[in-house]
Amino acid sequence: MKLLLLNCRAFLSTPVALSSVRRPFSASSSVSAHKWEGGVSMVQGASRGIGLEFVKQLLEKNEKGHVIATCRNPNEAKGLLDLKNKFSERLNILQLDLTIESSIEASAMSIRENYGSLNLLINASGILSMPNVLLPETTLNKVDKSSLMFAYEVNAVGPILVIKHMWPLLKAGGGSGTHRDVAVVANLSARVGSIGDNRLGGWHSYRSSKTALNQLTKTVSVEFARKKDPVICILLHPGTVDTDLSRPFQRNVPEGKLFTKEFSVQKLLDIINNAKSHDNGKFFAWDGQEIPW
Amino acid sequence: MKLLLLNCRAFLSTPVALSSVRRPFSASSSVSAHKWEGGVSMVQGASRGIGLEFVKQLLEKNEKGHVIATCRNPNEAKGLLDLKNKFSERLNILQLDLTIESSIEASAMSIRENYGSLNLLINASGILSMPNVLLPETTLNKVDKSSLMFAYEVNAVGPILVIKHMWPLLKAGGGSGTHRDVAVVANLSARVGSIGDNRLGGWHSYRSSKTALNQLTKTVSVEFARKKDPVICILLHPGTVDTDLSRPFQRNVPEGKLFTKEFSVQKLLDIINNAKSHDNGKFFAWDGQEIPW
Ligand SMILES: NC(=O)c1ccc[n+]([C@@H]2O[C@H](COP(=O)([O-])OP(=O)(O)OC[C@H]3O[C@@H](n4cnc5c(N)ncnc54)[C@H](OP(=O)(O)O)[C@@H]3O)[C@@H](O)[C@H]2O)c1
Ligand SMILES: NC(=O)c1ccc[n+]([C@@H]2O[C@H](COP(=O)([O-])OP(=O)(O)OC[C@H]3O[C@@H](n4cnc5c(N)ncnc54)[C@H](OP(=O)(O)O)[C@@H]3O)[C@@H](O)[C@H]2O)c1
Repeated sequence: MKLLLLNCRAFLSTPVALSSVRRPFSASSSVSAHKWEGGVSMVQGASRGIGLEFVKQLLEKNEKGHVIATCRNPNEAKGLLDLKNKFSERLNILQLDLTIESSIEASAMSIRENYGSLNLLINASGILSMPNVLLPETTLNKVDKSSLMFAYEVNAVGPILVIKHMWPLLKAGGGSGTHRDVAVVANLSARVGSIGDNRLGGWHSYRSSKTALNQLTKTVSVEFARKKDPVICILLHPGTVDTDLSRPFQRNVPEGKLFTKEFSVQKLLDIINNAKSHDNGKFFAWDGQEIPW
Repeated sequence: MKLLLLNCRAFLSTPVALSSVRRPFSASSSVSAHKWEGGVSMVQGASRGIGLEFVKQLLEKNEKGHVIATCRNPNEAKGLLDLKNKFSERLNILQLDLTIESSIEASAMSIRENYGSLNLLINASGILSMPNVLLPETTLNKVDKSSLMFAYEVNAVGPILVIKHMWPLLKAGGGSGTHRDVAVVANLSARVGSIGDNRLGGWHSYRSSKTALNQLTKTVSVEFARKKDPVICILLHPGTVDTDLSRPFQRNVPEGKLFTKEFSVQKLLDIINNAKSHDNGKFFAWDGQEIPW
């Protein structure tokens, strides 16, 4: 079994060609008939930071599970390429840019062809600052339309489009091959997205995009529950974690409050692995505490 | 005193020319030195529905107050033109399209020149459906990127840009000339923007844009409080009100639960007129009850 989907950027932009991808079980008439032992997990936004660490721990802690890692530029995702060398066919890297819906669709098509189901989707991507494009606002006077729109597109709209396209795969997967009863969608949110907990102000674009992500995730969770899908959606706050995203703001973090990626992801995986139907639509911090909306 | 700002669309797109507008108090060297008896209120999104009713009641219930009504197309805003005939110089109609920031800036400049201050800003605009552009989603499968982005632009980003540009005027005004201690910014939100109260799902674009508006308003309120500005921000849910916005969805409204504009606006004006500093950042329904985030 060998999946040759690594350098598939151009390929993925022409999804019609996907039927020619070699299937892991080409003998089977339906890939979805196969129950993947250890489950199939997708980590979206896996090139670095928390997303990359999720991929690593999912592969290391579960000897049989398969992981699909998506990112904007697979060829430059050094951390993922290193993991690919180590875990070979248990890791599948796909190109996906949240702002280009066709790349999300193409990933969904590729996963359908090659796995037929998903048991876990982690939306780990996120953006807080980007020189000349998105600056975390310190005052209303600096609020700028294009920053607001850009943060919303990446942090709120993108993850929801990913869920939309992966939904049939998650329904097909449910909890099969895992220790859970349900498939899990885990969206990385942030405590600053909480309205009730907003005491400092500022960061208008990031805050409101994460708050919108919370509402969209809740909205999706209501539909999953109503349709009795074997899928739940949860929101996760990873704590303040030492990654590129938090680096410019680490000065003000109190001693002992800046987590390593390893620690945070271990805590978040505990929450995911133990998630039950009644957790659907909830917003958890790294320590399992619920965060107010 | 006569304000000739009615058919000023082209005019407003060249704000530099605004200094030639005749000032109501051209003798005074500084307009802001004048305390406007009865206060100066701005209603943004005043062409129809709840916004138009706010303009009407503000003019009728307060014999001395001045009202600035903004809308996208002043020439076609029949309701406003009728009020202009009746209330003459107490009503000033300006062109403002939320999606065009220069029109917001031009309105701010015009108000600065002609009044120098504001005591009340009501963001009454809002969009829920628009044929071929924005359809209230009944399922995740119908979620569409351009709808999400458009609702966010109009319902969340636009009102915040209006506050940004009116902020100096609101600080200059505070509660002066009114019965309040503070200037009030009232943003029309909606109960469906509450995450905690989301039991039905659906309407992804509208819901998440209103939730984001709630977070942005809260964020702004924190800065107002920190700077000890004589300005507060509140969020209002008008109930289900008989307007163009709710018309396509009125079938499912229980008997007695569809309010007239007159009733809803009367209730909302009670909340606004009695607002105090400690209400800053809160989200009220028409009956004064707080709505969970
Ligand atoms: N670190 C913290 O302290 C902290 C705190 C609270 C919440 N969070 C949340 O946790 C999540 C992970 O953050 P992190 O700290 O790991 O951030 P990070 O190290 O900056 O990584 C961000 C990831 O998002 C990806 N991404 C950005 N734009 C994308 C797009 N258009 N399409 C696809 N992927 C895109 C990046 O890919 P490229 O490499 O291609 O840019 C990268 O993989 C985010 O949602 C963040 O908001 C982090
Ligand atoms: N009616 C309800 O049951 C209900 C319930 C909950 C919340 N609300 C909220 O209450 C507020 C008022 O709603 P309504 O029922 O009065 O709605 P409406 O009758 O449909 O009026 C909407 C108003 O928004 C204006 N608008 C739309 N896009 C705009 C833009 N780009 N720039 C400037 N103005 C724009 C419209 O102007 P044009 O005439 O130029 O289109 C119109 O004046 C909205 O925020 C709505 O979300 C209403």
